[in-house]
Amino acid sequence: MAKIETVSPLAPKGGFPQLPVIDGVRFAALEAGVRYSGRVDVMLAELCDGTTIAGTFTRSSTRSAAVLDCQDKVGGNSKGKAAILVNAGNSNAFTGKGGFDAVASITKAISDALGIDQSRVFTSSTGVIGEPLKWERITAKLDDLKAALDENGISDAARAIMTTDTYPKGSTVEIAADGGTIKIAGMAKGSGMIAPDMATMLVYIFTDAKVSQSLLQDMVTRATNETFNCITVDSDTSTSDTLLIAATGKSPAASLQGGTKPCEAFYEGLKSIMLDLAHQVVKDGEGATKFVEVRVTGAVSTSDAKKVASAIANSPLVKTAVAGEDPNWGRIVMAVGKSGAQADRDRLTIKFGDITVAENGWVSPDYNEDKGATYMKADDIVISTDLGLGSGEAVMWTCDLTHGYITINADYRS
Amino acid sequence: MAKIETVSPLAPKGGFPQLPVIDGVRFAALEAGVRYSGRVDVMLAELCDGTTIAGTFTRSSTRSAAVLDCQDKVGGNSKGKAAILVNAGNSNAFTGKGGFDAVASITKAISDALGIDQSRVFTSSTGVIGEPLKWERITAKLDDLKAALDENGISDAARAIMTTDTYPKGSTVEIAADGGTIKIAGMAKGSGMIAPDMATMLVYIFTDAKVSQSLLQDMVTRATNETFNCITVDSDTSTSDTLLIAATGKSPAASLQGGTKPCEAFYEGLKSIMLDLAHQVVKDGEGATKFVEVRVTGAVSTSDAKKVASAIANSPLVKTAVAGEDPNWGRIVMAVGKSGAQADRDRLTIKFGDITVAENGWVSPDYNEDKGATYMKADDIVISTDLGLGSGEAVMWTCDLTHGYITINADYRS
Repeated sequence: MAKIETVSPLAPKGGFPQLPVIDGVRFAALEAGVRYSGRVDVMLAELCDGTTIAGTFTRSSTRSAAVLDCQDKVGGNSKGKAAILVNAGNSNAFTGKGGFDAVASITKAISDALGIDQSRVFTSSTGVIGEPLKWERITAKLDDLKAALDENGISDAARAIMTTDTYPKGSTVEIAADGGTIKIAGMAKGSGMIAPDMATMLVYIFTDAKVSQSLLQDMVTRATNETFNCITVDSDTSTSDTLLIAATGKSPAASLQGGTKPCEAFYEGLKSIMLDLAHQVVKDGEGATKFVEVRVTGAVSTSDAKKVASAIANSPLVKTAVAGEDPNWGRIVMAVGKSGAQADRDRLTIKFGDITVAENGWVSPDYNEDKGATYMKADDIVISTDLGLGSGEAVMWTCDLTHGYITINADYRS
Repeated sequence: MAKIETVSPLAPKGGFPQLPVIDGVRFAALEAGVRYSGRVDVMLAELCDGTTIAGTFTRSSTRSAAVLDCQDKVGGNSKGKAAILVNAGNSNAFTGKGGFDAVASITKAISDALGIDQSRVFTSSTGVIGEPLKWERITAKLDDLKAALDENGISDAARAIMTTDTYPKGSTVEIAADGGTIKIAGMAKGSGMIAPDMATMLVYIFTDAKVSQSLLQDMVTRATNETFNCITVDSDTSTSDTLLIAATGKSPAASLQGGTKPCEAFYEGLKSIMLDLAHQVVKDGEGATKFVEVRVTGAVSTSDAKKVASAIANSPLVKTAVAGEDPNWGRIVMAVGKSGAQADRDRLTIKFGDITVAENGWVSPDYNEDKGATYMKADDIVISTDLGLGSGEAVMWTCDLTHGYITINADYRS
């Protein structure tokens, strides 16, 4: 793996946020030496009796054993304690029958060590594909992990799941609800192979809300479509993407009921955390030096708007232009053209930030290249395209494509 | 534009081929200073009375004025002389009404200068998008171009159409037919924005065959699908892609008739030139250091096989692994998974060259990393994936993704 020497220039200025204790969850993280040495690489979250768990997963047809196992288990009953274990360094993907055995061995060992039904033990693995996971290195550390469980351990846990990430990612929100406050705290890791249908992305969100599994699942599915499924770093989709949310029910607030105001407030809070984490993942995209919001309006349909947004956000020529701080709007026109969406060259409007660069099929009369070039120097770039045809809208977030991406990925396994 | 200092390491060892005179065609090339200085940037081909012309074009919905004009004209009657004029440096794409006026001005001027019906004058423009084409610089040179017309001028013409190309691209073949020999000679330029539905790619093929326009069009459409529509450099599709073929009918060989042996021989010859030129375009892909053939077999359908081939050939993670000479077959699994095609992890077989790296859902028992790493040092890499599900097959050609691509494209317009 190429050494990552420096933190992304787009990392949050304030560093990792102070995440609150979520009543009912304890964390542990330590060095198991799964692949890396000299850093924590395994995290365990122990969840109290009755915790409801929901999740969303990669749609890859070659998904990993751990993802398949989680998908089987999500939606089961919420009786008894639960646990989530994550290792970094090896994704246990495309590892044949041995991969399934590894997941079974780990979940069985956790079940035994913590007294949790095996059907309530969830695991994720991230890292290299196709090499057998040395699961014994993880199970050998279970006693230590158990002894280290601590309700304040979430920030160490967020560090344990990192691979090529240059900073740990966390986000939190509090929601005022009937009878008390609901807290939500989440962590994520990126940072390559990021594309809709998720990414090599692992996301764990913890809340003390009282909420049924089915309602929680509905909300997280809806929020995933508006957040993690709208980001892309390199258009590649991982075999291991997993988002799990665990609700302990320990908040004094009343149980959430679908369609009510408190439920909507919870949803908005959840979505804000997921959006924050999704943006942090993009900002830590391999080699990223610019964060780009791609807005598309005026498409004949939402689906067409998404096609255009995706074509722009995934275009290597657009992304290298952003890297070069070049207001090369011709490449936006190219991306619109190749998207497959209905488009009329002469009704296109393209803006960089508030600067209209092109309209009516040509460069805007008020535009000058210096304005565009100055705008492109910012860290955060907004590219807006109006197709002028209908009311379909979409937004995607991406980063630029730089030498850093090549350096990291041309030498990942060496 | 970033300076291209060195010729691609994948350039044909023998240099530009010796192209034959095609009876009925004369070429001229010179410096018009459209954008570049100190190099030829305009080429003119004059085609004799009765030449039939067929073509294939980008499917971009934002295609350039010249492409739209060619599409209008192809298929018209073949009476009188014809001409093809190409300029490099400015693509005249997304230039509003002015773009159409520029095409009309150039074609009118050629019509007047050479005594050719305007409906038989074809043009292409390649280069930067969105800047007005200084067409007067081209028409000012028409007398010089006319004076320079020479049946031996094809190799200079091939140089005049280059943009970021590091070498000119030519190919030729002779076909023995009833009554004599048929010659075909072609030229192409790449080299970024290359993807199915063509690319920033201009291709001009000349033959002395006697052939009807409709038969010629059928053959070139069919051959495009098996050649230029199977290559990708960066998944981006240009607004300007154009392939034109002109048949002068000057060969002593009998007129080609569909379904006959001579016609099939001509088709195979044409396809071989188109494949050669397509490969040369990929080998000159921006920053390319490796040529990659992606073979997919065993898919449930041809369409699924193409999806998988395209997902592999366009994956930045696969392409950076190739750049790093890393036999990272896990990224092939990832690409299969994200392709959207039907796939069963446990029936996948992946080979690098003749080396089976993965089968039955895991690394092959006979595989060792040293074998794979040695293979990846070659300039030409074959990656084969068998899905084990059906008889759908596809092949695509691509190149690696290197620092060179970033360097060229992050600074194209500066």
